[in-house]
Formats: sequence, structure tokens, C-alpha cells
Amino acid sequence: MVENVKELLKLHELITQQVYLDNENSSLVPQEVVDTMLPYFNKIACGNPTLTHKPGWEAFEVIMNSFQKISKYVGAKNLEEITFTPGESEANNLAIMGSCFAKKSQGKKIVISEIEPINVLHTVEMMKKFGFTVTKVPVDSEGFLDMEKLGDAVDSQTILVSVAAVNNELGTIQNIKEAVQIVKDKGSQILFHTDATDAYGRIPLNVQDLNVDLATVSSYKIQGPRGIAAMYLREGVNLDRIIEGQIGTQKLWPGIENTPLVVGFTKASELVFESFEANVLKMRWLRDKLVDGLFCELDDLCFNGPRGEKRSPDNANVSVLRAEGEALTIELSLKGVYVSSGSACSRRLLQPSHVLVAIGRKFEEAHGSVLMKTTRYLTEEDIAYVLKVFPEAVNRIRHIVGSTGV
Amino acid sequence: MVENVKELLKLHELITQQVYLDNENSSLVPQEVVDTMLPYFNKIACGNPTLTHKPGWEAFEVIMNSFQKISKYVGAKNLEEITFTPGESEANNLAIMGSCFAKKSQGKKIVISEIEPINVLHTVEMMKKFGFTVTKVPVDSEGFLDMEKLGDAVDSQTILVSVAAVNNELGTIQNIKEAVQIVKDKGSQILFHTDATDAYGRIPLNVQDLNVDLATVSSYKIQGPRGIAAMYLREGVNLDRIIEGQIGTQKLWPGIENTPLVVGFTKASELVFESFEANVLKMRWLRDKLVDGLFCELDDLCFNGPRGEKRSPDNANVSVLRAEGEALTIELSLKGVYVSSGSACSRRLLQPSHVLVAIGRKFEEAHGSVLMKTTRYLTEEDIAYVLKVFPEAVNRIRHIVGSTGV
Repeated sequence: MVENVKELLKLHELITQQVYLDNENSSLVPQEVVDTMLPYFNKIACGNPTLTHKPGWEAFEVIMNSFQKISKYVGAKNLEEITFTPGESEANNLAIMGSCFAKKSQGKKIVISEIEPINVLHTVEMMKKFGFTVTKVPVDSEGFLDMEKLGDAVDSQTILVSVAAVNNELGTIQNIKEAVQIVKDKGSQILFHTDATDAYGRIPLNVQDLNVDLATVSSYKIQGPRGIAAMYLREGVNLDRIIEGQIGTQKLWPGIENTPLVVGFTKASELVFESFEANVLKMRWLRDKLVDGLFCELDDLCFNGPRGEKRSPDNANVSVLRAEGEALTIELSLKGVYVSSGSACSRRLLQPSHVLVAIGRKFEEAHGSVLMKTTRYLTEEDIAYVLKVFPEAVNRIRHIVGSTGV
Repeated sequence: MVENVKELLKLHELITQQVYLDNENSSLVPQEVVDTMLPYFNKIACGNPTLTHKPGWEAFEVIMNSFQKISKYVGAKNLEEITFTPGESEANNLAIMGSCFAKKSQGKKIVISEIEPINVLHTVEMMKKFGFTVTKVPVDSEGFLDMEKLGDAVDSQTILVSVAAVNNELGTIQNIKEAVQIVKDKGSQILFHTDATDAYGRIPLNVQDLNVDLATVSSYKIQGPRGIAAMYLREGVNLDRIIEGQIGTQKLWPGIENTPLVVGFTKASELVFESFEANVLKMRWLRDKLVDGLFCELDDLCFNGPRGEKRSPDNANVSVLRAEGEALTIELSLKGVYVSSGSACSRRLLQPSHVLVAIGRKFEEAHGSVLMKTTRYLTEEDIAYVLKVFPEAVNRIRHIVGSTGV
């Protein structure tokens, strides 16, 4: 495998231009964010924030400042409502498992949508081992939750509902406020969690306004460093810890706080929220240029998810008919354009994305899907380059498929 | 609280020299390790290693190279035996919870020593909620495990034994090979886990030689970055996942691999193991200089843990009688010397360290304890400075205590 990889990388030696669009799966951390993190590795605030010495007190100040900022950006009432975790998977696991274990005496039913991300989907599946049941609410052809069926699914045994604010593959912006209202009308004690990792920095997000009990936001999804995310938990709601160890400045996740990564996440958040409108406009402008350009250049494309205001401004998901998605990602990579095919999460299983299946895409449509996300760091020239090489790559693959009759 | 911290930090403005000895709780990442990580934030290998594009393949190569190196350094048979986790707490939780859930049909008993680190101690306590029982084996006055009582504790219901290779507070080097033999004689199917975070880089460590099934090593404990650790799991042993999500290059912990941190951990490991003997000699030389100097300058000290070859070369743990440990950490901090008092893990509870209690230290001895760890990055001048300010600090505190009659 490693040898194959070396050969594949050799084929990339002549690349002159690169455009990274696979921001769903990883991101390039802007140099200004990296530079902000650097002193915290070995110069300032390098201690355990609960320790009584200078490097500890410095770390305490930094961590408290970050709690404050992240709580402001998500609209939390106070900083104790924020818990930093090592990633969005850990945050979603804490929200779901922690809620279930804390409320198991009140019921055993979890309700999610059919298109939740893998780290929600697999976590609720795991909870079945502990006697919990899971009901999945369907979505329409654009990924919008069926609100009537949500109401039907929630009953007296339900303890937790989890629906992402923005679907990570389709960009569909759910009406979370309405969903919460429906759930709380059935029982005010039922907890509502939203994976807001694809909403944070893209659409206005206010946990108090949405009236959710729990929410997850993530650093790398706003071009911050990996290894850090945050969970909002409404004051007064109790959760069980799911990982045990030394408790520092926060009670729901153990271990000594990772000051450099917390600083990086906070800086990335500042960059996003201090120019929120301009950032969103830029992402949307580039995304629309990309999508419009592809539809102009190519036939037999199919657009996945909603268009317009109900779609996240960064998300572009296009199924290229008569071209297998993975072959296309490789072909594009050879020209320096990096995208992902289908759902990266299910890629190793070589199954079509559960999200595309849920919105009714046929097998060949799902398999030819390409997911791209724009950021404010991309330029018009980047998109022009993508629009030059993308149609060429599709035509090459379609030609091969056509000539071999596969 | 934040206001108090600001005032405390103001008192440090005149510091001219700083010596960081609290390497138990956090560490200064050497600049060469930071520099090695930097390109991986935004220049190379920035993709998801399971994705089929250049940044993904680059990441795959880097991650595989790191699996290979870490597996070599711990003496694993192959790289699939290594799992990266976001920290040593997560690795110990995975080892313990993952073993228990996977083997629950075979028995419900866990055996640990009385002096395991908090992230083992609290994790086994949590397992009681799921019907598991815990037996703690006592240690002698230097922290060595009572091997006879270990044999007595292990029975037909036992599924897991966890004993740290080196105690994090006392530096006690356990005879893990003998402990494993005792356990396996009682039942070859019983899993043996060792928290080797304080052994890695300090004593020769080979999981095959020790015959353990699981082991935890950690990046920050060898001056690598926080946010990354590794768990060894012997080939053929099955574990349940405890966190669910997208599976990448490793099946036991989800989420997209954190390439910069993996690179940092690997680089820190290389620096440790490529000059292993010299590094150990330097740590020991500085540690001995520190301890000998303190005993030479001060009365009423009490040394915690063993001396000589059965103690980790970096660890110094001294109880200063007639001086409260936390007051001493503050007094030392004002002179730029950073140490921790008692067990940092239990600090917020203001209880004496469970480890010091287990070896029979009286309340006042445990409360006056100071934990320091040397690294190869410290110098003779650093230790000379500590030996200058430490006795002054102790004398000031003892004077205050004496004059107020507390």
C-alpha cells in the first residue's frame, strides 16, 4: 500500500497549481492561526491551568478567555456551558452517550434524522448495546427533515433528539427552531442536540434562540487546527462523563487542557466572526461561481441538496453521471484539485453515502458525487483553474468508460 | 478568579530566570519538534489519509511512518498494534473500557494497584456502573506492588489487570514482567494493561518482552505536543471501541488523524530514542544533583519513593515538613521555579495524593510534597538556580508558619 502511494505521489510532481476544496475532511490552517498558536507550545501559558504557578495561571487566563469567546460566538449564556473536547466525534459522543446514561431512568429512545453524520449515526447505533432504541426520521429530496414524522417519532420514552443544523454533505439548513418546538411540545424534558459543525461560521447560530440543550462546533471546519472542538450544554442540564481522568477547568472532559489548540480554535473563530458577513459573501460567491461554471461546461450533472438561502454558503455537491466519483477525485488530484467523493465517512466501505441514498439518489448518481467546500481563503483564480481542469477530467473519465463499455 | 490570576501574574514581572520542572503536568515542546510539525498544518500532508488525493496520500504516508516508528520504540510486532488517541486519558480509557466491554461475558473483575494514575483509577470506578468490580492491590512503602497479594486478587472472574510500569508520582519502576507472569499463570486469557507513560523514554520498554497485552504511551510526557498518545494492543486481542465515528487508518479510535500532532509525537520519540542512553544519563545526573542539593541545604525533608536503579531517572518527589506544598509552589513560582505539589490530579479536591497515602505517608508529609521531573533540555545552571531559591522559599514559609503558630 505504501509503495502504491509513493508511485501515486510521483505522478503529481509536475503540478503547478493547487486548489484544496476537500474542506469537509480536513483543512489548511491559515498561517496567521498557526502563528498565534506557536508561543503556547513552549513560551507562554505552557502549564496545567489548574496548577498554582506562573505557567499554570497563564494557561488558566488563556483557557478562560477562550471559553468566553466561544460561548459568545455560539450564543451561550455563560462560559461554563462550553466544554472543549479533542474533536467533533468526541463532542458528539459526549452529547449522545452522556445524555443517554444520565437520563436512562426516564426512557430509552433516541430520535435522529436519516442524514446525521457518521459520528452521530454510529454512536446511536452503539447505544443499542446498552438497551437504547433508535428511530430515524426521513428527509425530503433536498435533505429537509420531515417535521410531521419527527412529531410522530417522539414519544414518552424519548430522552434525546439529535439533528444537525446544517447537513455536512448537502449543506441543507434545517429549521432547528421548529424541530425543537415540536420536540419540546411533546415533553419539555427531552434533550435536543444539534451537530452545528457545518453551521458554525456559515449561518447565524445562537443556541438560546434555537432553544437547543446541546450543540457541537468544531475547529477544523472553520480552518482552525484539528484536535479541538467544543460542546455547548445548557446550564442546569446534567450529563454523564464518558471518559474519566484528571478534571481540570471543565468537568465533562478530563485531561490537561490543550492550550495551543484551544488558542488556535479561538483565533480561527475570531477570524470567522469578526468579519462574518464578508466571509459568508465570499464563500457563497466562490461556491456559486464554481457550481454555475460546472453546469455551464458539463452535461449530465445533478445537483445534490437545496439551492439558495436554505443551503450553507460553502457547500457544493454535484453528481457527475457516467463518471465514478473516486476515479474523478484521482483524475482531479493529478491536476492539483482536491475534492472528495460521496461521503468520505463511508468511503472505505465503498458504499454510497447514506445521505445521498436518503434523499433518493440512485446508486450511479450517489457514486458519481463530488463534494467541495469553499473558504474565504480561496480566490477567483482558484475557481477559474478548477473550472478549467474539472470538465477535462470528467471528459477523460467518460471517454474511458464509454470506450470500454463499462 | 481571573482578576486574582491577573494580580498573581503581575507579581511575576521581575522574574529574570525560569526553570520548568512540572513535567508531570505539562511540558515545553522543544523548538525543533514544533518546527517539524509546522508544514503539516498547511503545506504538506494536510488531507484525510483515507482520501484519494495528493494531500490524503501524503498524510497516509506520514501516518504509516509514525505507526512504524512508535511500534518500533515500544517493541510491538507490527504497526497495526498501535492506535493513536487524543491523549493518555483517552488511551487508558480505551484500554480499560474497551477490554471490559469486549470480555464482559468472561467475567466482571478488574484488578489494579492502589497507586494507579487518576485516569485509570476513575475509569475503573466508572466501570462499576456497568456491573464490574474492582480490587486494588496494595504497595509497599516505596510503591512496589505486593506480588503475593496480586496473585491472591486475580481469580476466575478476572478479565483485566492494569498496573503502571513506572508510577507517575514516585518514579517506582514495577517488575511488570513478574506481575504479568503471576497473572497469566492464573489465566492466560486475562488481559494485562500497563500505563507506560512514565516509562517511555526513561527505562527500556518492550511490550513483547514484558508480555503485556496493552500499553499506553504519551507524547507530552516526552516533551512532544499535547493532544496525542498511543495505545499498544497485542495482535489477536479484540477490544470494543468506546468512541464512535468515521474510521480512518485505525479501527479503534475514530476521526481524521491529526497529522501535525502525530508528526510532533514521532519527532519527540525519535529525539528520545536516538540518544536514549545519553538522555537518561543527563536526566538522572540533573535529578540527583537536585535531590542531593536539597537534602544538603535543608532539614526535615523526606524522600518519597525508591532510590537508585529502581526509580525512574527523571523523578524527584520530596516532602518538605513544616511547609505546605501549595504555598511552596507559589513561593517558588515567584522566583521562576515551577513545580507541582502532591498529586496535581487531586489538587482541586485539596486532598493529599492517593499515592502518598498508599505508601503510608502521614497527612502533613503528603501535604508538603513537591514533585519535580528533569528533562534533557535542562542545564546544570538551571539546577543550581533551583538549589539557590528552593531553600530560601522553604525557610520563608517555615518562618511564616512558625511565627503564626499554624
